[in-house]
Amino acid sequence: MTQIDAVLAHIDANIDASLARMQELVRFKSISTDPAFKNECRKAAEWLSAALEDIGFDGSVRETPGHPMVVGHDKDAAEKPGPDVLFYGHYDVQPVDPLNLWNSDPFDPAIVEQKGVKVMTGRGTSDDKGQLLTFLEACRAFKAVHGSLPVKVSVLLEGEEESGSHSLLPFLHAHKDELSKDLALVCDTTMFDETTPAMTTMLRGLVGEEITITAADRDLHSGTYGGPAANPIRVLARILADLHDDQGRVQIPHFYEGVPELSDEVKAQWDALPFDGKAFLGEVGLSIPTGETGYSIYEQINARPTCEFNGISGGYTGDGFKTVIASKASVKISCRLVGQQDPHAIRENLRAFVKARVPADCSVDFAEHGANPAHSLPADFAPLQQGAKALRDEWGKEPIQMGMGGSIPIVGEFKTILGMDSLLIGFALDGDNIHSPNEKYNIESYHRGIRSWARVLAALAE
Amino acid sequence: MTQIDAVLAHIDANIDASLARMQELVRFKSISTDPAFKNECRKAAEWLSAALEDIGFDGSVRETPGHPMVVGHDKDAAEKPGPDVLFYGHYDVQPVDPLNLWNSDPFDPAIVEQKGVKVMTGRGTSDDKGQLLTFLEACRAFKAVHGSLPVKVSVLLEGEEESGSHSLLPFLHAHKDELSKDLALVCDTTMFDETTPAMTTMLRGLVGEEITITAADRDLHSGTYGGPAANPIRVLARILADLHDDQGRVQIPHFYEGVPELSDEVKAQWDALPFDGKAFLGEVGLSIPTGETGYSIYEQINARPTCEFNGISGGYTGDGFKTVIASKASVKISCRLVGQQDPHAIRENLRAFVKARVPADCSVDFAEHGANPAHSLPADFAPLQQGAKALRDEWGKEPIQMGMGGSIPIVGEFKTILGMDSLLIGFALDGDNIHSPNEKYNIESYHRGIRSWARVLAALAE
Repeated sequence: MTQIDAVLAHIDANIDASLARMQELVRFKSISTDPAFKNECRKAAEWLSAALEDIGFDGSVRETPGHPMVVGHDKDAAEKPGPDVLFYGHYDVQPVDPLNLWNSDPFDPAIVEQKGVKVMTGRGTSDDKGQLLTFLEACRAFKAVHGSLPVKVSVLLEGEEESGSHSLLPFLHAHKDELSKDLALVCDTTMFDETTPAMTTMLRGLVGEEITITAADRDLHSGTYGGPAANPIRVLARILADLHDDQGRVQIPHFYEGVPELSDEVKAQWDALPFDGKAFLGEVGLSIPTGETGYSIYEQINARPTCEFNGISGGYTGDGFKTVIASKASVKISCRLVGQQDPHAIRENLRAFVKARVPADCSVDFAEHGANPAHSLPADFAPLQQGAKALRDEWGKEPIQMGMGGSIPIVGEFKTILGMDSLLIGFALDGDNIHSPNEKYNIESYHRGIRSWARVLAALAE
Repeated sequence: MTQIDAVLAHIDANIDASLARMQELVRFKSISTDPAFKNECRKAAEWLSAALEDIGFDGSVRETPGHPMVVGHDKDAAEKPGPDVLFYGHYDVQPVDPLNLWNSDPFDPAIVEQKGVKVMTGRGTSDDKGQLLTFLEACRAFKAVHGSLPVKVSVLLEGEEESGSHSLLPFLHAHKDELSKDLALVCDTTMFDETTPAMTTMLRGLVGEEITITAADRDLHSGTYGGPAANPIRVLARILADLHDDQGRVQIPHFYEGVPELSDEVKAQWDALPFDGKAFLGEVGLSIPTGETGYSIYEQINARPTCEFNGISGGYTGDGFKTVIASKASVKISCRLVGQQDPHAIRENLRAFVKARVPADCSVDFAEHGANPAHSLPADFAPLQQGAKALRDEWGKEPIQMGMGGSIPIVGEFKTILGMDSLLIGFALDGDNIHSPNEKYNIESYHRGIRSWARVLAALAE
């Protein structure tokens, strides 16, 4: 029996105890957005700190202006090969409303069979209590079998991920030295499907911007002024219409600078994916992809930048009708970024694009709503290869290098503040109902997730 | 002394009594939109009915589901030359908030000097109690001097003009035979300026339409769907941007069918007007006319049709930001119509224009918000010539044939339901603060307004 085989065997033999610990953690009603559950959040943090102590870490509950962080470092002082790692997860959960749509108590986790598959039900089983425990249970097994971990491990568990992560940035800045490691490991993402593991290696960045056009200095009556008076909705509509061409390409100057084409390897992998773009759009009532011509739907979501209009308002929008020419109209715009696109340059170029189209007697105001660059791991990044090997060994399949259309701010912050890249490996499934009633986590996700992390830890040391 | 000279002399000699009657009428707090003043509305109606009786009419207060109408017909049964006329005015007034901005009690009318000009202050002095009394006082003077009026006169006074005129349509339908005359006279408009009389001969019509674009069947996350998923705000912006060309011309097919060019006479009159388009736009902070190239600002407002966006909404419009791709976006559009433009054809053509631009996997819903055609009197309309003569005689100046950008629904309803055209002559001024604090009516407007109507009545009989 090799070193890892013994650990895997221990995991298998003790899976019931691992599941029992998951149930304990899920029972805390750690809904971070609702002040009524403040104490439940603290109790979850204390339970995790004790769990870290239990496996030989110096677990601690750290105060913040919001819910506490849990931090732990392996007490094992021995020199280790491979990168020092910081594992990140979050112990807070989404609210459970509407409660009447749940088939069982969201905070009384049960192991049941659903469509022939064993799952644990409950809020946070998938997002992110079950997922974070896959890592801690892998460490526990290693310690139980070998008395030590293959690499140097620290852990950071957040309690405000579902409510804006307000304390995270100051906390990272204040504990920069303590938390800066060679690599972050994050378990808060999905597999490609039930049998195909995945690493999320591309996350789109985001630039949020609000644009307000002002025409006349007051609302006007469209009978008295309609015709000669500038209408800010008309001005805005023309600007928005100019922002994409007929091929769906964004017309902001220099927008595509820093947008990489896919590597041949990833392109081949994605072309072979059983991803049904037609079904993906069909599920929400659509059928015609509106992204750039020449890219598949999967590429449009995961590897191409966008410019989306998230909200528009101006004039009278209540019931009935008012013959007003508004003074102002505004739009909220967000650009999803990929590769090396520079969020600040894009904001400036968007503003210049808009200003060039505002009539001389109108004015425009801009407001920032966040900016973070895209995250993408280079193909030759060693931990990526090591993670891929570990997942391949566990699942008997090549793991997919997934893109993710959305952003995970922590990844940008780890890079910017702590100077480290993140390896995102997760075992959740699209059907886990995260943020919805009847959240669940497959028992197989949990069990093989623990085994996968054990293999990753071993692989990182090689 | 001619017949009319004697009447004018009587008006001059009795102006104080006329002013005292105006003060009596203004004292009723006939705010129609506020149920607290229901009884004040009724008292105003009763006062007017009695005033009609006083000058030899069969005045009556007629019940409606809202505030009552006042109707009166001259009891004089003699045959008359010229058209039978129905005079229209309204006795209800706008609310007076904010009261603290008034320099005097809005319902305690006072005759004071403002910038060297004698005015009567008070809510309704200009809109429309003072104005409607100019006509009744003219009738009173004729009766006092000659015992009879030159033409057959009926009167309709409404009590809900400032609150939606909800009872008017059913009332006109129910009393069609009683109220259908050869010509309507309306006193609810302005002079061109303090010394230049005017007849409002062009009123723009209106088509109101609400357009809702639906893309996906639910709101989407812009991280997960941004790129391939249709965005209804983008769809809508492109449609709106297509609705005008760079010369400000509306692009709805057949839109300009029925739009007349100005007659040489009116064109010459308008070109000579001391109307300062630059100042008109400058007053609201604008400087560049956005209507059709090649037409003056005055023409753009009064004689050209428009397509205006009165309100737009879609997606997240609250504080902060939400990376949502909305399911729906909507716009409220109104077209101002002139000449013979057909409101129903324009609605249909607008809808076809929009439908042709909605992607196949999106849908569009339309909702009607009213349709009324433009009103314009033909240049050879006899009462127009007669009115012009009367005003020329009184003011020593050619009266301006004005357009009015807005609509006065009563004019369309008189035409459609009662089959009669309306002659709109008024003596209000732009600075009368109607609908605002410190409403006033110039004493000269009142006095010479009464004289003007006496001359119009005489002219109509010629």
